[in-house]
Amino acid sequence: MAVHSVTMEKTILALLEEKKYQTLKDVLVTMEPADIAAVFEELKEEKVPLLFRLLPKETAAEAFAELEPERQELLIRGFSDTELREVVNELYVDDAADLVEEMPANVVKRILAQADPQMRKEINEILRYPENSAGSIMTTEYVSLRPDMTVADALTRIRRTGVNKETIYTCYVTSGRKLLGAVSVKDLLLAEEDSTPVSEVMDENVISVNTLTDQEEVARLLSKYNFLALPVVDTDGRMVGIVTFDDAMDIIVEETTEDIEKMAGMIPSEKSYLRSNAWELFRHRIPWLALLMVSATFTGMIITGFESALAAQVALTAFIPMLMDTGGNSGSQASVTVIRALSLDELEFRDLPVVIWKEIQTAVLCGVALATLCFVKIMLVDRLLLGNTDISLLVAAVVCVTMAFTVLIAKIVGCTLPMAAKKVGFDPAVMASPFITTIVDALSLLVYFGIASALLF
Amino acid sequence: MAVHSVTMEKTILALLEEKKYQTLKDVLVTMEPADIAAVFEELKEEKVPLLFRLLPKETAAEAFAELEPERQELLIRGFSDTELREVVNELYVDDAADLVEEMPANVVKRILAQADPQMRKEINEILRYPENSAGSIMTTEYVSLRPDMTVADALTRIRRTGVNKETIYTCYVTSGRKLLGAVSVKDLLLAEEDSTPVSEVMDENVISVNTLTDQEEVARLLSKYNFLALPVVDTDGRMVGIVTFDDAMDIIVEETTEDIEKMAGMIPSEKSYLRSNAWELFRHRIPWLALLMVSATFTGMIITGFESALAAQVALTAFIPMLMDTGGNSGSQASVTVIRALSLDELEFRDLPVVIWKEIQTAVLCGVALATLCFVKIMLVDRLLLGNTDISLLVAAVVCVTMAFTVLIAKIVGCTLPMAAKKVGFDPAVMASPFITTIVDALSLLVYFGIASALLF
Repeated sequence: MAVHSVTMEKTILALLEEKKYQTLKDVLVTMEPADIAAVFEELKEEKVPLLFRLLPKETAAEAFAELEPERQELLIRGFSDTELREVVNELYVDDAADLVEEMPANVVKRILAQADPQMRKEINEILRYPENSAGSIMTTEYVSLRPDMTVADALTRIRRTGVNKETIYTCYVTSGRKLLGAVSVKDLLLAEEDSTPVSEVMDENVISVNTLTDQEEVARLLSKYNFLALPVVDTDGRMVGIVTFDDAMDIIVEETTEDIEKMAGMIPSEKSYLRSNAWELFRHRIPWLALLMVSATFTGMIITGFESALAAQVALTAFIPMLMDTGGNSGSQASVTVIRALSLDELEFRDLPVVIWKEIQTAVLCGVALATLCFVKIMLVDRLLLGNTDISLLVAAVVCVTMAFTVLIAKIVGCTLPMAAKKVGFDPAVMASPFITTIVDALSLLVYFGIASALLF
Repeated sequence: MAVHSVTMEKTILALLEEKKYQTLKDVLVTMEPADIAAVFEELKEEKVPLLFRLLPKETAAEAFAELEPERQELLIRGFSDTELREVVNELYVDDAADLVEEMPANVVKRILAQADPQMRKEINEILRYPENSAGSIMTTEYVSLRPDMTVADALTRIRRTGVNKETIYTCYVTSGRKLLGAVSVKDLLLAEEDSTPVSEVMDENVISVNTLTDQEEVARLLSKYNFLALPVVDTDGRMVGIVTFDDAMDIIVEETTEDIEKMAGMIPSEKSYLRSNAWELFRHRIPWLALLMVSATFTGMIITGFESALAAQVALTAFIPMLMDTGGNSGSQASVTVIRALSLDELEFRDLPVVIWKEIQTAVLCGVALATLCFVKIMLVDRLLLGNTDISLLVAAVVCVTMAFTVLIAKIVGCTLPMAAKKVGFDPAVMASPFITTIVDALSLLVYFGIASALLF
């Protein structure tokens, strides 16, 4: 019951150390493949093949599919041809295709040599499709029915062929590989008459995706309609595979992580954080850092341009960080909200006027509130408490008016750039905090010095 | 086929305008509930009840469950008692409980009055559980089997009771409501003998959650194990409901949106962006903006403290934004990566030393690269191209050394704070860009002026 993986790992490591193999077998049988895989990730390299050989055949393949590529490679290198054949042919085709994509060439050669001819053909078919397309993530193991079968025939067919299918709960009705409809096992089981033809219980309005549809779209559809699986058809309307809900969950998590990484000014990585070394992290982080650093030349130029003014009113300098940070924060609130709404399909480009108007209203509220608070803060904290009498009432006014304008500019820039990026086909996620901050910095400094010049000099 | 919702909306609005109700009925029958709900959201208020009455009974309930609360309330206010009764009793219990939670008191009274006694009892049971707990999101409509039933009995029971169950594909074996095991329809269909008792085909190692388990944990388990449903048991081990995979997908999306909002310094909102008005956006955004603005007092104090130094070396001011932004960006890269890894359960507190060491190495690489690039940029762009001869070699050195240290500090602070927050029970997501930036700003200015004081004055 419940979650016991951490304790289980300890138990298994101890049993392995004590060579209690029969006990281990009994324990492993009770465990979920995902938890067994977690134990394998913790294991010392030399123990990996040993524990693997204790697993029942089917669990072995399922746990294998859940392992990280490094461990998979380690295992395969230790496998005899017979062992490799058993594992590979027990895998679902989509997992086998993933494996082939991850392994180095010499390992791939061995895998394909041991795969059954049918398996090899299907792996190769999946590998033909471009990365992140529906074709590349689908499995070819689905139940297909003919429209003239009866409900009883259909159930018999499911019983006969179901064991190797990734899901049996949604079956697809095809004729000459053309997709005619879908029927669930629930519909079949609850059908009044066993002799009803499948064509009468099937749903003809079946939503399908093309082999080239982006995986993110596939996941979005699966989640929107709460389907267990979505059929994939080629450009001639012939059914070639299915994508199942569990893949959709993984894709949603993966794509969101990518979005979050982009929003923080990083190039997305497929590797998890703990498995990435410093060099890899560096390579994914330095491009944006460098680009944004260099673009700060503009803010530098603006400050240099007003150097003499700053020298005359040194108090102004002290507020630069506060103005810049508040601008950056205001802008990223707007941009991140819009980016998330875009990726959840809650927003489209045609909503831009609505969005800008909403942000202007919000900015006015935030701007007035912050400017007021800022004025009170300067008067009470900076002047009274810290005794900084350099800050005249006029300086305080300049800072507060700039604050209000900065918030306004930041919110407008923040909501507009991601939507514009989407419109022209760029990824909205890169228009997040770091990028917006750089732009808003420059604009807010211009406003600051503009207002300062008008009022103070 | 494929995705046609936008065009469908236009067609339906046109047909409704032309009062072609029979055609509308024929069209609606072909559509998914989620797409029908999308049409309802676009509809003028007075047309909503009209279109709703054209839906087949079961589709009507499914589409109703997908609507936003505003539309649901509008419909209910227009329903006769009979209509309300039909819709409410056709809903899944978890959707009915959600509805009751969202509606104002007088509407809730009507809903409960029209619900069947069994439905009312189950709604009330679900509402007893705390928000975001497994109990509050579960449904009580699952198939339960007895261990002594044969496979044939079990299939008969599924056929008889399955129509109103949220899923029939995983059935739960109970005795006196104690959860003994789970059995899938696949196992039942593929069982060799119809007379085998259920207790022999069931999986006894069933993973379950408690009624009080957090919904995020429930979603994580469903996604980790690729289950269709997860049983929910009370503190006495009695089975009370199930949570299904489609709810898990929604929870994952919802919780990630919350994390992203927190990371951008916002208080998470349950309402979608387009449905939030400016006042609501303001209320969710102003607290962090105000707090961070006030905490910029420290950066202001640091600059004021070095005012005379800055007046003597005005060139130093121009680099403040670049140093601050690069520090902020470096820090948020680290913090956002760590926050995401924490929320995906890839990291634990005990990994802190590994994480810090990884970030130090990365920071050294990034710091050296940026400092070098910065030096080249100052020499070529600022001095040569822009002719800013105020910037001495020594000033350039101060800036570049500060740059390297700022990156180092930012990465260490960025990775440590979210993990520390998690350790002491705070939400790591608030330790993202805005918060890190404020801290790193102050630290980097201290380093800047410290190095400047040592080398220049």
